[in-house]
Amino acid sequence: MKIEINQALAIIKRGSEELLVEQELIDKLKKGQPLRIKAGFDPTAPDLHLGHTVLINKLRHFQDLGHHVLFLIGDFTGMIGDPTGKSATRPPLTKEQVAENAKSYATQVFKILDKDKTEIVFNSTWLTDLGAAGMLKLAASLTVARMLERDDFSKRFKSNQPIAIHEFMYPLLQGYDSVALKADVELGGTDQKFNLLMGRELQKQMGQSQQCVLTMPLLEGLDGVNKMSKSLGNYIGINESPEIIFAKLMSISDDLMWRYIELLSFESLETIDSWKSAVKAGENPRNIKVRFAQEIVARFHSQDAAEGALNDFQTRAKGGVPDDVPEKPIAIDSQSIGIASLLKLAGLVESTSEAIRAIQQGGVKLDSEKVTDKNLQLAKGATVIAQVGKRKFAKIIIT
Amino acid sequence: MKIEINQALAIIKRGSEELLVEQELIDKLKKGQPLRIKAGFDPTAPDLHLGHTVLINKLRHFQDLGHHVLFLIGDFTGMIGDPTGKSATRPPLTKEQVAENAKSYATQVFKILDKDKTEIVFNSTWLTDLGAAGMLKLAASLTVARMLERDDFSKRFKSNQPIAIHEFMYPLLQGYDSVALKADVELGGTDQKFNLLMGRELQKQMGQSQQCVLTMPLLEGLDGVNKMSKSLGNYIGINESPEIIFAKLMSISDDLMWRYIELLSFESLETIDSWKSAVKAGENPRNIKVRFAQEIVARFHSQDAAEGALNDFQTRAKGGVPDDVPEKPIAIDSQSIGIASLLKLAGLVESTSEAIRAIQQGGVKLDSEKVTDKNLQLAKGATVIAQVGKRKFAKIIIT
Repeated sequence: MKIEINQALAIIKRGSEELLVEQELIDKLKKGQPLRIKAGFDPTAPDLHLGHTVLINKLRHFQDLGHHVLFLIGDFTGMIGDPTGKSATRPPLTKEQVAENAKSYATQVFKILDKDKTEIVFNSTWLTDLGAAGMLKLAASLTVARMLERDDFSKRFKSNQPIAIHEFMYPLLQGYDSVALKADVELGGTDQKFNLLMGRELQKQMGQSQQCVLTMPLLEGLDGVNKMSKSLGNYIGINESPEIIFAKLMSISDDLMWRYIELLSFESLETIDSWKSAVKAGENPRNIKVRFAQEIVARFHSQDAAEGALNDFQTRAKGGVPDDVPEKPIAIDSQSIGIASLLKLAGLVESTSEAIRAIQQGGVKLDSEKVTDKNLQLAKGATVIAQVGKRKFAKIIIT
Repeated sequence: MKIEINQALAIIKRGSEELLVEQELIDKLKKGQPLRIKAGFDPTAPDLHLGHTVLINKLRHFQDLGHHVLFLIGDFTGMIGDPTGKSATRPPLTKEQVAENAKSYATQVFKILDKDKTEIVFNSTWLTDLGAAGMLKLAASLTVARMLERDDFSKRFKSNQPIAIHEFMYPLLQGYDSVALKADVELGGTDQKFNLLMGRELQKQMGQSQQCVLTMPLLEGLDGVNKMSKSLGNYIGINESPEIIFAKLMSISDDLMWRYIELLSFESLETIDSWKSAVKAGENPRNIKVRFAQEIVARFHSQDAAEGALNDFQTRAKGGVPDDVPEKPIAIDSQSIGIASLLKLAGLVESTSEAIRAIQQGGVKLDSEKVTDKNLQLAKGATVIAQVGKRKFAKIIIT
């Protein structure tokens, strides 16, 4: 029993930033009952990338250990929008939009989470019932000074940047969510630590057993420097095609690979250790990367897609032509056609001038032979495999 | 018309501390419509003294000028009590208690206010409807820094005394009351200035015309130094007997008299000026004091009571016996009775030893003659007016 808990703890702590309070989590685990694991999500339309899945993976770890996930959609504040009215980017959501976004979350996260051990909950359910009086009582749970200890509040206060009073309510509402859900553990990003601890505070005040808090780090993007984000362009979206996900993962540095594996792979710690030993003993890290990239593609698409993506990647890497080149019959009126016009008609370039530029840069091949003559004519009746750049192919049949 | 407004303004400003913003009030008055005058009161059981009536008198001034008073009972927070649970003296009130206290307020304040121009309102009516979302929006109306500008918050914050976050909500709720009531003017003590201004702020945010704010000073107690308060014992309760109110008012200094007259008398400014001139010309201020004391007694009791109280006061002042001395027939078994026993049987002292002490101190009179012999015997059949101290009298008939 003791060993099992130690193993569980190792799985839970893997890749995490901080666990508060470890002994309390051990005590909870010792009871042998499924724990209630809470994580909160924004109610706006989700478009998840691998960075977001770090936390969702951790929820999955808990599920694999037998625990129950409370996937909380914070729709209460979402349906209020930005009450200061200053942010045009945060208009209030309707009930319908929330429901739609929740459905979209489900489609995406059930690629990782176990449906049977997941409950999607909405905090409007209990926060609306609080009423004006309940909000006032909730506001009485903490002092202004304590709230100003939160890092960002403290910085803004010291630099005379405005903090609207309702912002003080958000951590309390998040804490109250934990009370309403009787959460045993709450997960969040490291930047959420203060709010996560608020759950502990309020549960204590209301005589509940206090939740443990597990913070997860932010995943670096493909550049290995900045955190993964859509706006920085250094992301891998979970809805991207198998080939793109595969290729993007193959592009990361060997160092970053180990970080990604720690936070994103479901392989056991032992397996990963054995990979590290193999690389130390001389194995090419590229082999590990391929295996990892396949795991990720399989998670968000399928095992077949993972193999297809590998195939595609290897073909391209060898400069070869992929298996599934689309056929493009091009009908011409004259007896021959110039290469630039042909590439344009086949949809491989936007314009003939783009075609000429590509030829001049050595980026155009016909049947794997580089084209050097921008005035090359092709005869009616010919069939060629044309390639522009690394990825654009077409089997052109001139008729 | 212009003169009328100037006169109205003089009446409104009489005795007040600060009017914000005077020009706005002039503009409101110019419209010639009844204005909505708001003042908020604690929902706990009221036991008003003259200090409280300074503000109520001002409401009456507005009514005399044709305006409509919104007598607001702040029951919303009263029914929550102290949400920190720390103050045993602020238990939550029930709806029934609030209704009862409101009735008690009515009995007391309608001695001053015009019933037909008074509306008693309860802020739970609209604050309950706000809901949790409404509270959050309300909290967004102000920044933490602005709220910390309030004098007492600023002091407590700087000296590290705790401020619970819900305390930030109270000024906002008070401000929202003004929005809900569409108040044109709000009255309050000088210590309320910040909260009163919150009404202006929120009305502006909600696109309403902003209320004017009129602050009234705190009335000094009988000592002329500290503010009038029950706990300091320097008060005159409006439910006290005519004689007590009259005597207490006659006891104040001549300086304090003018202050009381300014804040408590309904005599016109012209009349008061003429009194001042008369005193300067040699009239005894005592005559003014009598007139003022009669006005106040008449307000809370009746004109008859005021005259009775004056009579009583003058009789006592002359060392005379009042008109209404109660008769006490005392039946004795023997032929005579000792003075000490007699006073006790007549209920003028608690014990014979108190009687003896009173005689030794020269505090006992029979038919206006001081008694010096503590062993004095009185014969069966005698009738005497006995007096102990200044105020206790009995007409004793020994049978």
